[in-house]
Amino acid sequence: MTDGKIALDAMGGDDAPRAIVRGAVEAVSLEGSLTAERIILVGNQAALESELEDLGGNPGFEIQHASQVVEMAEDPRRAMRGKPDNSISIAAKLVKEGRALGLVSMGNTGMVVAASTLLLGRLEGIRMPAIAVAVGFTGKPMVIVDMGANVDATPENLLHNGLMGSVYASGCLGVEEPRVGLLNVGEEPEKGPQRFKEAHGLLSSSSLGFVGNIEGGDVFSSRADVVITDGFTGNVILKLLEQFSGFLLEKVARSAGAAGVELPREVLGPVMRDLDYAAYGGALLLGVSGTVVIGHGRSDSRAVSNALKQAASAADAAINDEIIAGLSNAGGS
Amino acid sequence: MTDGKIALDAMGGDDAPRAIVRGAVEAVSLEGSLTAERIILVGNQAALESELEDLGGNPGFEIQHASQVVEMAEDPRRAMRGKPDNSISIAAKLVKEGRALGLVSMGNTGMVVAASTLLLGRLEGIRMPAIAVAVGFTGKPMVIVDMGANVDATPENLLHNGLMGSVYASGCLGVEEPRVGLLNVGEEPEKGPQRFKEAHGLLSSSSLGFVGNIEGGDVFSSRADVVITDGFTGNVILKLLEQFSGFLLEKVARSAGAAGVELPREVLGPVMRDLDYAAYGGALLLGVSGTVVIGHGRSDSRAVSNALKQAASAADAAINDEIIAGLSNAGGS
Repeated sequence: MTDGKIALDAMGGDDAPRAIVRGAVEAVSLEGSLTAERIILVGNQAALESELEDLGGNPGFEIQHASQVVEMAEDPRRAMRGKPDNSISIAAKLVKEGRALGLVSMGNTGMVVAASTLLLGRLEGIRMPAIAVAVGFTGKPMVIVDMGANVDATPENLLHNGLMGSVYASGCLGVEEPRVGLLNVGEEPEKGPQRFKEAHGLLSSSSLGFVGNIEGGDVFSSRADVVITDGFTGNVILKLLEQFSGFLLEKVARSAGAAGVELPREVLGPVMRDLDYAAYGGALLLGVSGTVVIGHGRSDSRAVSNALKQAASAADAAINDEIIAGLSNAGGS
Repeated sequence: MTDGKIALDAMGGDDAPRAIVRGAVEAVSLEGSLTAERIILVGNQAALESELEDLGGNPGFEIQHASQVVEMAEDPRRAMRGKPDNSISIAAKLVKEGRALGLVSMGNTGMVVAASTLLLGRLEGIRMPAIAVAVGFTGKPMVIVDMGANVDATPENLLHNGLMGSVYASGCLGVEEPRVGLLNVGEEPEKGPQRFKEAHGLLSSSSLGFVGNIEGGDVFSSRADVVITDGFTGNVILKLLEQFSGFLLEKVARSAGAAGVELPREVLGPVMRDLDYAAYGGALLLGVSGTVVIGHGRSDSRAVSNALKQAASAADAAINDEIIAGLSNAGGS
């Protein structure tokens, strides 16, 4: 199972293919990191060869040609029908055919979710895939799941989000016996919409380390290692968090300027780092047959490199086997 | 209609009755502010008289005795049945009986919503009251509604949230022709759960200044003056925002300390002020027959004073009349 290949969608992302190819080169140029043989670049062959040329030659990547590109704002359903040879679908097919264990894309998130779900299929027993993001606000990893794959979560979907997030936290992030919290409007079990009350019941009788309902502010506390949410609220808070850090730190910098106080890099730099998702790579699409990492469209080469390492480590940890094994133990259907 | 009284629940809040009574005194001691005759203190008469004594005597407040107190974590339904003489319900009854135009409470939010909805009744045509909070992240007021009254919003509820938020923004916050956005997971009309797609349709054909779907990060942009959300997501993001500011600014202060950089008050102070909801008073419960302001349990006397002024200004602006008038124009049922 180890040392399987990772298919990298080289055409997705705001700065593709340049930043993507550069990230792949960075990922294999550091000591103790991935070998070039583990990476398949997927995209326009001529464009990729030209980028590699600019970077001093191909360090040993396999290149898989894909003639089409799905734009960031394109409708996934239309793209699935109209662009069968797009780089995301081709990357997914490499996983489907066993030529790769996982795929990484910085492209259109909805398209990655659609192509992965349709081409790879869901894990047995999982009805809806979910996007997990690891954040490190308190200095320790915390997994929030779902960040936007499934906006209409059922109680069972929420239970499965908890299971998949737990397996990710323990299998890839070194969290022992993860504590799982359900993001809700109050701590009492009877709080929230009906589907959350039912999810609370399912989670309470599961074998997960369920700590009960948690609230919005607990994302910055250490009350849980895994935060269960639906894809609607998860997506809203993810985008809010992304903007808020930059917004607030800019305010601080401006206020310092106005007060005539010099803020050296050592002040805001470490704060930015703690808030930076790229430190943990990208988001993991959980619940599909394969390892799928979705990076931010704005990813720079460092984020691409981290996402590749994350995909390799998730594939090597075989967390999908654990999710399937956990489904019966967790009390899910 | 002007110069009606405001009933102040003097027993609700972490530091009640002390901070509440102090806030009332502050509200009437500044030039051009409320007169003492406009405020009715509701709560334990002996306790309130003793607090006023400590502050140099009663400046002219009416006191309405209420023998019971609802605790912050108490179940509202149980309190409604078991504590009929609680200060929140008594304040609501003063409004019901026409002895006051509005009420202010820093107490149990669920209890204020329940007592106001049951005792005052809903405005004709409004099915579910909603909590509106004005934030000022970008330096201009933005109204987010609903922050937690109704966790299961229907498309019609979401439309009404937009209408009520608009009336609040224009009537009390000086926003002309408010732009209304629907908080969703993407800009396209077909994004999000079914109820949001339907709400998008209702809003598009309404007379509101609807600018379409907006995303989580737009809370820090100027794309909309009114942000429509359901009470579930709204509550999660409100609590998240509350914690995030403090969390991040503490991180900045610590990082500065570690780097040996002195941060004078003038740097973080103005940032904190912009993030401080108390500048706009408390949250407004919209959709009930009366003016209801809900403050944070941690409110200090300044926040209480602001909430009183906010209630007086909302009552004087007669926004409920405008909401009723707007219901037919807006295309609501």
